[in-house]
Amino acid sequence: MQELPLGFDLAAVQAGFRYKDRPDLALIFSRTPARAAGVFTTNAFQAAPVQVGRENLDRSDLMRAVLVNAGQANACTGDEGLADCRSTLDMLAGHLDISPGEILPASTGVIGMRMPMPVWEKSLPQLVKSLGGCTPEQSAMAIMTTDSFPKTASRETGLDQGRVRFWGMAKGAGMICPDMATMLAFVLTDLQMDGPRWQEMLAGAVEQSFNAITVDGDTSTNDCVLALAGGESGVSCQSSRDRDRAFQALEEVCSDLAYQIVKDAEGGTKVMHIRITGAADSLDACRAARAVGNSSLVKTAMFGCDPNWGRIVAALGRSGAGFDPEKVRLSLAGQEIFARGKPVDMDIDEVFAPLLTARDIRVDIDLGTGEGEYFLMASDLTDEYIRINSDYRS
Amino acid sequence: MQELPLGFDLAAVQAGFRYKDRPDLALIFSRTPARAAGVFTTNAFQAAPVQVGRENLDRSDLMRAVLVNAGQANACTGDEGLADCRSTLDMLAGHLDISPGEILPASTGVIGMRMPMPVWEKSLPQLVKSLGGCTPEQSAMAIMTTDSFPKTASRETGLDQGRVRFWGMAKGAGMICPDMATMLAFVLTDLQMDGPRWQEMLAGAVEQSFNAITVDGDTSTNDCVLALAGGESGVSCQSSRDRDRAFQALEEVCSDLAYQIVKDAEGGTKVMHIRITGAADSLDACRAARAVGNSSLVKTAMFGCDPNWGRIVAALGRSGAGFDPEKVRLSLAGQEIFARGKPVDMDIDEVFAPLLTARDIRVDIDLGTGEGEYFLMASDLTDEYIRINSDYRS
Repeated sequence: MQELPLGFDLAAVQAGFRYKDRPDLALIFSRTPARAAGVFTTNAFQAAPVQVGRENLDRSDLMRAVLVNAGQANACTGDEGLADCRSTLDMLAGHLDISPGEILPASTGVIGMRMPMPVWEKSLPQLVKSLGGCTPEQSAMAIMTTDSFPKTASRETGLDQGRVRFWGMAKGAGMICPDMATMLAFVLTDLQMDGPRWQEMLAGAVEQSFNAITVDGDTSTNDCVLALAGGESGVSCQSSRDRDRAFQALEEVCSDLAYQIVKDAEGGTKVMHIRITGAADSLDACRAARAVGNSSLVKTAMFGCDPNWGRIVAALGRSGAGFDPEKVRLSLAGQEIFARGKPVDMDIDEVFAPLLTARDIRVDIDLGTGEGEYFLMASDLTDEYIRINSDYRS
Repeated sequence: MQELPLGFDLAAVQAGFRYKDRPDLALIFSRTPARAAGVFTTNAFQAAPVQVGRENLDRSDLMRAVLVNAGQANACTGDEGLADCRSTLDMLAGHLDISPGEILPASTGVIGMRMPMPVWEKSLPQLVKSLGGCTPEQSAMAIMTTDSFPKTASRETGLDQGRVRFWGMAKGAGMICPDMATMLAFVLTDLQMDGPRWQEMLAGAVEQSFNAITVDGDTSTNDCVLALAGGESGVSCQSSRDRDRAFQALEEVCSDLAYQIVKDAEGGTKVMHIRITGAADSLDACRAARAVGNSSLVKTAMFGCDPNWGRIVAALGRSGAGFDPEKVRLSLAGQEIFARGKPVDMDIDEVFAPLLTARDIRVDIDLGTGEGEYFLMASDLTDEYIRINSDYRS
């Protein structure tokens, strides 16, 4: 079993928001005030818990708890939804004897329905009572919606003053799937951090992990990544080398969780590891990677194990990235398939089709122009995705 | 049967590039030099016929013929592909006794394979011999790839000097589907037009028709819209009112063909007619419409006849368009479903699900901000799309 960073307790109960026979309400509790950082959805429609969480973080970055429910997103619920969210924090604060401003809320589930308050009233005392009696996996299970497995990751790293631990959990099966609204991740550490540095470090790690994946190109009203640094290890960063090591551990936890989200993509059978090099700059590299990773035609070809380089090349061509088509080189699964404006001279189906039966597929593209780079993980697109998303509410 | 504009003849033969038992090579011939206009793909990878067609148009806008084949795209074929394309024009020019520079080529089909020159050598004499012995529908059939029906449209309009006729044909089933590369359209008229005006008029009509549809958000290496104004009616535009009427007829032919492409979207069962109003400007309106029309989650919900307004709202929220979420109003099939940040107070499934069983669905969105407007037609996303695109090359 994974060990949590020092100073944190978890709880999970079966409240009954939407799912039967599984926990759907989770609590992260920090025994001392923890330095909190958060990255929130950029969607113009922001769910009530996102609005309340931002407000709380704006007032203070010292937090004691994170409260997460699955099944109801509390998004597009108007002023009533905001009041519902605040009232759940008031209730929890009373049971934990802390202030409601020391709690960050998060919700995931169906958009547009009001929270069932009697369910909260009944469940919160049980949730607090069960604190500490829950494994990391049970906690990760309580925040799932269409996920097919719970997602957790942990790293330990040695700093000058001693060892510190990072642990995280995430939900998401679709980079975003708005009405299961959608990607949530929580990272804990017993490292001691000051406020601005911790927010910077989280933002940097999110950029390289959760913001570098795509399932369907959609983003939701409820997305957030919250990170708590409780400091119970007594270890803080003493040098830039310490900060690099701490960042690396944090980034690895985030990337591990991000990979698990793509692996669990709704209906997905494959993970494309798209690496763009040789772009004019990193923005162009990002454009090229996203055009390929979001192309329905590239995704369906991957699902069919079809070495259909023409679709990748056409997606690059419309990406808006600047390059000379004659200088582009494309490799699939480590083998060059397209260069100098033409496919390589071999029996492409015979050579490549067997390589594409793997779950993880490298897609390496050199644009032959400059030094810009970007890395993106993307799922394929399958009939099961269609089934899940056209049947969802029935 | 549709009547062609005066002065044009069509031909179609079964050459055998890829398809069996159907015509796959078409010729449009203008008995006199016709004023030509063209709009080409913006993809960085441009197919050989696109490159050759642009070159010819740059040298002169008077054309005698358009030559189109289906099954081979002649894209990503390097210098050899360019030479192949030029040599087909040389051959045809010989048979027609015109100059190769008076012919516009277009190809659609698989990317990356060389043209089979013996097939061209054998077919071109037959093609020229059969000129005039072909219905508009047979000609439209010869340019199909995954299309399930031939697409033609025609309009007549009265100008001050007399009546003129517009006729067009198109192929495409998937706004773009790069390896069936992809959307082609050809419009003929017997109106007399001078060069710059005709190009402007075509560009304007394309903007409101072929550029305002989406199946999967992809664009191809071979797309083009070519228009020939032969002038055989003896009628030219005498006034701005004439130009408006001619533009309207041209735009209606283009929009009719564009609608047919979305209706024939690979695996599609529905056409969403997305109208954005109240945007800050037309660019924002376009962003909002495309975010909704390209969202896999909106498209799969439409396929499932699911009034899942949350997905539409979430797509608007990430579109980049500026608006106040509280002011957004959304109607589905003519009925308001979301306003003032919340869903309308009615049994949404009971009211809306039956309305969504129609083939054509209106999606009206007012952003409540300014005067910007945009209209987009989009297909749904179905398991059949996945089947077609994951099985394609097998």
